[in-house]
Amino acid sequence: MIEFCLVGGGFIGPLHAANIASHPDARLRWIVDINIAAAQALGAKHGGRPTSNLDDALADPETHAVMICTPPRTHAAIIERAARAGKAVFCEKPVDLDMRRVEACGNVLTTTRTPFFVAFNRRFDPSHRALFDAIRAGEIGSLEMLVLSSRDPEISPPDYVAAMPYGIFYDTMIHDFDMVRWLMADEPIEIVARTACMLDATANPHRDPDTAMVILRMATGALVHVNSSFRAVYGYDQRIEAFGANGMLISRNRQPTTLERYGADGIRRDPLLYFFIDRYAESYARELDDFIQALEAQRPPSIGFNDGRRALQIAEAAVESAKSGVPVSIPD
Amino acid sequence: MIEFCLVGGGFIGPLHAANIASHPDARLRWIVDINIAAAQALGAKHGGRPTSNLDDALADPETHAVMICTPPRTHAAIIERAARAGKAVFCEKPVDLDMRRVEACGNVLTTTRTPFFVAFNRRFDPSHRALFDAIRAGEIGSLEMLVLSSRDPEISPPDYVAAMPYGIFYDTMIHDFDMVRWLMADEPIEIVARTACMLDATANPHRDPDTAMVILRMATGALVHVNSSFRAVYGYDQRIEAFGANGMLISRNRQPTTLERYGADGIRRDPLLYFFIDRYAESYARELDDFIQALEAQRPPSIGFNDGRRALQIAEAAVESAKSGVPVSIPD
Amino acid sequence: MIEFCLVGGGFIGPLHAANIASHPDARLRWIVDINIAAAQALGAKHGGRPTSNLDDALADPETHAVMICTPPRTHAAIIERAARAGKAVFCEKPVDLDMRRVEACGNVLTTTRTPFFVAFNRRFDPSHRALFDAIRAGEIGSLEMLVLSSRDPEISPPDYVAAMPYGIFYDTMIHDFDMVRWLMADEPIEIVARTACMLDATANPHRDPDTAMVILRMATGALVHVNSSFRAVYGYDQRIEAFGANGMLISRNRQPTTLERYGADGIRRDPLLYFFIDRYAESYARELDDFIQALEAQRPPSIGFNDGRRALQIAEAAVESAKSGVPVSIPD
Amino acid sequence: MIEFCLVGGGFIGPLHAANIASHPDARLRWIVDINIAAAQALGAKHGGRPTSNLDDALADPETHAVMICTPPRTHAAIIERAARAGKAVFCEKPVDLDMRRVEACGNVLTTTRTPFFVAFNRRFDPSHRALFDAIRAGEIGSLEMLVLSSRDPEISPPDYVAAMPYGIFYDTMIHDFDMVRWLMADEPIEIVARTACMLDATANPHRDPDTAMVILRMATGALVHVNSSFRAVYGYDQRIEAFGANGMLISRNRQPTTLERYGADGIRRDPLLYFFIDRYAESYARELDDFIQALEAQRPPSIGFNDGRRALQIAEAAVESAKSGVPVSIPD
Repeated sequence: MIEFCLVGGGFIGPLHAANIASHPDARLRWIVDINIAAAQALGAKHGGRPTSNLDDALADPETHAVMICTPPRTHAAIIERAARAGKAVFCEKPVDLDMRRVEACGNVLTTTRTPFFVAFNRRFDPSHRALFDAIRAGEIGSLEMLVLSSRDPEISPPDYVAAMPYGIFYDTMIHDFDMVRWLMADEPIEIVARTACMLDATANPHRDPDTAMVILRMATGALVHVNSSFRAVYGYDQRIEAFGANGMLISRNRQPTTLERYGADGIRRDPLLYFFIDRYAESYARELDDFIQALEAQRPPSIGFNDGRRALQIAEAAVESAKSGVPVSIPD
Repeated sequence: MIEFCLVGGGFIGPLHAANIASHPDARLRWIVDINIAAAQALGAKHGGRPTSNLDDALADPETHAVMICTPPRTHAAIIERAARAGKAVFCEKPVDLDMRRVEACGNVLTTTRTPFFVAFNRRFDPSHRALFDAIRAGEIGSLEMLVLSSRDPEISPPDYVAAMPYGIFYDTMIHDFDMVRWLMADEPIEIVARTACMLDATANPHRDPDTAMVILRMATGALVHVNSSFRAVYGYDQRIEAFGANGMLISRNRQPTTLERYGADGIRRDPLLYFFIDRYAESYARELDDFIQALEAQRPPSIGFNDGRRALQIAEAAVESAKSGVPVSIPD
Repeated sequence: MIEFCLVGGGFIGPLHAANIASHPDARLRWIVDINIAAAQALGAKHGGRPTSNLDDALADPETHAVMICTPPRTHAAIIERAARAGKAVFCEKPVDLDMRRVEACGNVLTTTRTPFFVAFNRRFDPSHRALFDAIRAGEIGSLEMLVLSSRDPEISPPDYVAAMPYGIFYDTMIHDFDMVRWLMADEPIEIVARTACMLDATANPHRDPDTAMVILRMATGALVHVNSSFRAVYGYDQRIEAFGANGMLISRNRQPTTLERYGADGIRRDPLLYFFIDRYAESYARELDDFIQALEAQRPPSIGFNDGRRALQIAEAAVESAKSGVPVSIPD
Repeated sequence: MIEFCLVGGGFIGPLHAANIASHPDARLRWIVDINIAAAQALGAKHGGRPTSNLDDALADPETHAVMICTPPRTHAAIIERAARAGKAVFCEKPVDLDMRRVEACGNVLTTTRTPFFVAFNRRFDPSHRALFDAIRAGEIGSLEMLVLSSRDPEISPPDYVAAMPYGIFYDTMIHDFDMVRWLMADEPIEIVARTACMLDATANPHRDPDTAMVILRMATGALVHVNSSFRAVYGYDQRIEAFGANGMLISRNRQPTTLERYGADGIRRDPLLYFFIDRYAESYARELDDFIQALEAQRPPSIGFNDGRRALQIAEAAVESAKSGVPVSIPD
């Protein structure tokens, strides 16, 4: 039984809290939020002692693991405190947005030999995973091209956008950059990125890019394209297409129902699942299970610190290319 | 080169005329219509001498084959005249609606050893044919159930309906009865039929059945369902589903384009092809080719008199069951 | 909070136990099984006191509801005991296979004014429910035909088959008979049924029908077809097609993933979900929630005793028609 | 009636000859091929006088239009001779591969006021056209991204590749560059291109790029991605995806039949149409009809010299970017 301290009761926190509560080998022991009311509400629903002081939870020897659901810029400090307290860490991406801060954090993790998991949940989506398995099984031979569409139905609120410029790379495509490395078992060596502001000033007052396309060149020579938008009115659009010497694999979108409506004006199906939490519901449950199983088996979690670091490096290079207009090499 | 006399320039006649004109091994030599203007119009477009007198064409030794596109109740007499004149015959279904008349006509065909083709064009649809081939190749093992949906977008005009009561069996499902025999290589031994009038009195003033369902029991024990309607507002709906010991085959509908439209209210595709001539365009061209190849190779056409006779017997049994309410045996 | 006594820890029992345990407004209080070890195992996993004596649970004033997951022939007696003890009842279908026994049970429920729910879980499948909602919203106008495919991937074990002859109607199509009534808001007045034994003697030693087709005529005149098989090798095949004056609705099957595999031999997708528990996972959770909400609101559950009685009447008529060969009227 | 002189009886020539022969308003008058046997063979099949001397056809006052199906490097000279002889010109793309030669040819066309059509046949594909119409009708609002997949099942023979290095841009993607301009009614201002050699030395002995990705930035700011490969083993893969403020449109691939095969290992459909002539059969017929209608109405053909020139400019810029590694501006 793994006893969790969950830090950050807003946004994605309640989802993780529910998953912990319903996992047979996990229990919610502490809920930490600077807004104590939020912690109390979650605790009432899923168990766990509420506190606004992380030290309460870290001092508790029965706390085995810390799950970090706070805003990105707080991650590194919490990771380090948890690591120094001897707790395993499950952290929402990214580790940090500043690469030097990331490296420093990594040093602490290494020194403390902390089991660390960065939550690139898409790796656990059943369809994406089936695509991964088919590649590994050699179904399409050597990989030649990868095309990812990664589009959100809405832009984040202005405050959120202001806090993380170029979020289209740092917050959205960072998932895809991780998928590229994982699916291809290959590293990108160069990226070229283009962006646009297509939303009007009401929706996107900070004029931060809301539309983007990149091409990545991989070490093996394979080519990758990713496109993103913050205005997919038809729902959360997440597709992966892997093209190889012997065929193609496509992981398609999902819809709430299978209903088809035939009328004189055509055949209509549901729009896509609109919210990422619906789209990736299984992924969240499965990534938690993966982390728990790793702790119980005393093996490293399947997505580690270096995966978080690499995805951020690629995102940084994308931002640099978008700003400068020229292709940017990605360091090893 | 097969020289054709086409009889009946209305309805389906122009389609057959165009197919003959564009077939490399065929030529339109005569066009017979009691309305000489119709014959002239077709002749101007596709070649062929217009006449209102069938004897002109039958007396011509260069006429090899007669294609009959006239109303059903005239078929048998024209078949017999053509057969006695030594011409091969390609006839739209049915031979006749009266079984004794059909048998008499069959005797003439036998005596005259006339190459005879009854135009169950659906056998030549590429998707239905692929389903047939997959069954024959043993892909789904022994056949256990067959389900056919056979729905027209509109009811025929009142005059047409009045001229052929129970047209839902005699005119529409008769195609499916032929498909059942062909696909299964098996004969039905019993049918039970139910009908309904769902259209209102404006659309269906004669209150002839516009909706029907049947179950057929085959000699091998396999079960078959067919359903029909004259009100498929979303287009001409023609599907076949074959269920066997090792799997299932479905021949689906076709749409004019592959366009998908994603919007906030869902994903929309084209309605089905609306008109049977669009839906079965290839079938008409291919059945003509089959007939021509049979004549050239001096082998019997692939759909013969007995196929026409059997489909009519099943339709008759369907009408009897629909009227009496009880299951009806189908004679050998 | 509704406290449950679950009776019958095998087969479908563990699924219901898990759903009760994870429902925020429910708790598993008692688990009754004549095999006490089974009750203990479930209790260890989901909470609840194990017992082999139903009276223990019925005597407990804190027990609010009894969930019956035992074999069909034990249902009626347990329903009556629970009703007389003043407990609400959630019962797997059928109430019983003998209509007189069903009626007697119904009298007890009426006298005791017991909240009663019969678990036709398919009504809660999201896609079937969306089809229901679209019919109710008038999207396809008046209903004219309904076509249901209801096919299991495997036949039940011989013992199970021996205990319930004509299970293809009593156990499988009974779900569809309920769906027909629910979707159409209409009652069937006549049924004609045909069956076949397509499996060999190893798989189906009792030669009980493993393949069936029926046509139902509804009070409004609409026609319904249902087909079933116990050998859908490609998975659990559950489709509903509603045809109306203004269009058609199809509730399609589901697959484990959305992966498409393109190769030189074609495009391949997953087979269907194989097991009914996977196919209808949401349905089971949602039907429980419906029952709990009804109890909390003190309104009758949405599927009641009469629904169970009617579905059984239709199944009985189907058996009679299959045996006699003639259409059978269905009493009011 | 438009009388055609077809130049070049190989490769795509026979297809055009057949389309001319079956068009009601066109006739094949001359067939010119330096291989007189090829001209004779086509003439025997579709009519038209064979010759190896273009001047014969150009001197004939009854020749209205010249259709050019010869290898690319011969196009410009034939265009100019036809233009000077006062004939309308229908030319397979490209006009030439050298931009100065193209400009010179354009001057001749202008001076002679020749009706000129460059055969970007994809504009006439029914599904692509439906996508175009939906954009124009405003169905998805303003265009923000366009994603085109344009993949051939095989690489051209080595001789052909040697004669046109970077054919992946000059011969394949040039179609897509035209589609981008046509669909978006917008001009690209910059391109960045990446290529790879994924085929082995046997299939691709000249090591010419067989795999490519580009990003185009349009004058309006919209972003475009195109990817190509010469090894789509599952068939000729041609998809267009238009993303806009109000939704998305996808023009999907086509398959020979609609057959679905359900087995224990999944659901399989046909691979894609393999050959571009099958995939774009309607397009070839429709582009011819468009040209003929333009001549008859004395209006300019719908795809003109500037369309050919612009597509080539974009292809040139793509080659330059692929070679240099940096983004390349596209002149007006």
